[in-house]
Amino acid sequence: MTTEISVEEMEAARNRTSSLIHNTPIMKSEKIDDKVGAKVLFKCEHLQKTGSFKARGALNSAILAKEQNAKGVIAHSSGNHGQALAWAAQKVGLPCTIVVPKNAPNSKVEGMKEYNADVVFCEPTMSSRESTCAEMAEKLGYYYVDPHNCVTMINGHAIGGGGFAASVAFLIGNLRPDIEVYLVEPEEKNLANLLENGIQCASETLNTIADGVRVAHVGSLCEPILKKYCTRTVVSVKEEEIRDALKLIWTRTKQRIEPTAALAFAGVLYHKPDHVKKALVILCGGNVDTDYVIN
Amino acid sequence: MTTEISVEEMEAARNRTSSLIHNTPIMKSEKIDDKVGAKVLFKCEHLQKTGSFKARGALNSAILAKEQNAKGVIAHSSGNHGQALAWAAQKVGLPCTIVVPKNAPNSKVEGMKEYNADVVFCEPTMSSRESTCAEMAEKLGYYYVDPHNCVTMINGHAIGGGGFAASVAFLIGNLRPDIEVYLVEPEEKNLANLLENGIQCASETLNTIADGVRVAHVGSLCEPILKKYCTRTVVSVKEEEIRDALKLIWTRTKQRIEPTAALAFAGVLYHKPDHVKKALVILCGGNVDTDYVIN
Repeated sequence: MTTEISVEEMEAARNRTSSLIHNTPIMKSEKIDDKVGAKVLFKCEHLQKTGSFKARGALNSAILAKEQNAKGVIAHSSGNHGQALAWAAQKVGLPCTIVVPKNAPNSKVEGMKEYNADVVFCEPTMSSRESTCAEMAEKLGYYYVDPHNCVTMINGHAIGGGGFAASVAFLIGNLRPDIEVYLVEPEEKNLANLLENGIQCASETLNTIADGVRVAHVGSLCEPILKKYCTRTVVSVKEEEIRDALKLIWTRTKQRIEPTAALAFAGVLYHKPDHVKKALVILCGGNVDTDYVIN
Repeated sequence: MTTEISVEEMEAARNRTSSLIHNTPIMKSEKIDDKVGAKVLFKCEHLQKTGSFKARGALNSAILAKEQNAKGVIAHSSGNHGQALAWAAQKVGLPCTIVVPKNAPNSKVEGMKEYNADVVFCEPTMSSRESTCAEMAEKLGYYYVDPHNCVTMINGHAIGGGGFAASVAFLIGNLRPDIEVYLVEPEEKNLANLLENGIQCASETLNTIADGVRVAHVGSLCEPILKKYCTRTVVSVKEEEIRDALKLIWTRTKQRIEPTAALAFAGVLYHKPDHVKKALVILCGGNVDTDYVIN
């Protein structure tokens, strides 16, 4: 299995997965451009297979696991990573088990089951997720696809806990250093304190409507990448700013994205530096229950 | 002003409006194909300018009104037609007044105001809408763009009350008679009784969550077209079928369409004839309040 994060491995991952991955569209809205005072492009990864960008890294990981004759794949996930891995495993013909915290959104759990994954519930803490997953992985002999710190996921362009940001930052930083990569976070995360002073967030879980980024810890693979490329481009947003951004995207683009996918746009809407005249916002996922409203 | 519905006028309308109108994408979902048992393509007119297909006919009408040196344009509308006409008037530089029933969704009224239309409220009945609109039109000397029975709208591909259906049925019936055009209606409308027996619906307003088709009456321009092309292809759906269709579209395509836009898909989902192996569903609009949920 690959152990290196590199532009070459990212390109190999792209080639390996391209026949099954959507080339998602880019959308825009004149009304939003007017409001922000800059051109805003939305990259629609919520229209990716399984409703999030995580299908990219999950498929890369599942293909490589299959090549290594793994008996199956396993991960812990509150939703998008689990759906993505379940889908990827089904595509390559491997069994899949997902360990899910009991408070995960129902639409995401249903999504996993529809791709024939075995779902095992655990307590909604990181330690319960990790220990349950480790036990099951050993018992079943499945390959573990870490949702926060995994080379094949990052090379495949994916995952929360810094992995997606690290993936994008690494690739853009290498190929297009003229483009700035901004990281938008719920303010409680305080990523600047980690990148500048080496101090991890005191909380294990963030209290935010952006459920896809509630894990506060940044993985050891991601931290040096973010430090190198994004130390001066961390943007902290308030919960009400995420809500406003979500409302504006729903209203103007008609895209039913999930709250986490509004995080990046909240940064553009409320904290865009004056020199930025054009912003690409990645709408990372769209897996939200049908009865979900913004409160 | 044009007084004829024809393929030539439809093509002229298309050329006249094309620089300002979106060529909206077509989306699909493997999960939906599996569920329906046929290939389903979604034409995304909810991503059209102003959030509905009505921008097409409204712009055609506003351009022609401007060419005729009209002082302004006026219409009555519960939402999408009003937003579309307000936008179109702003684009061509004409003043615009919209008469709105008091119970119209707030997001649609706000949309009209953002395009600088003057909004005048009336009672939520068709007679109040029509009389208020006629008075205002005379007082202001504005050109009246009828939302239900208007040649420039139909030629521009637009409007509820049968206009949109008539427009599509007319064009497809002339250019591609091998393609069947199905009309999906809330069951209370009983369009079959009109087309087969000449009997208009007894109600003035339908009791349906599909607020864009609550007007029960079919206009005199539309009736003969629908009779000619669609007498045998009317599909009636129940309210719960519209709800299910809306949920499935929100969940699977991530498109935050409005309830009316789920009507056509409800027909495909629950009443698709066996011989139909591929269906194009037009998602007609996406103007829905952010706090709207399916109940």
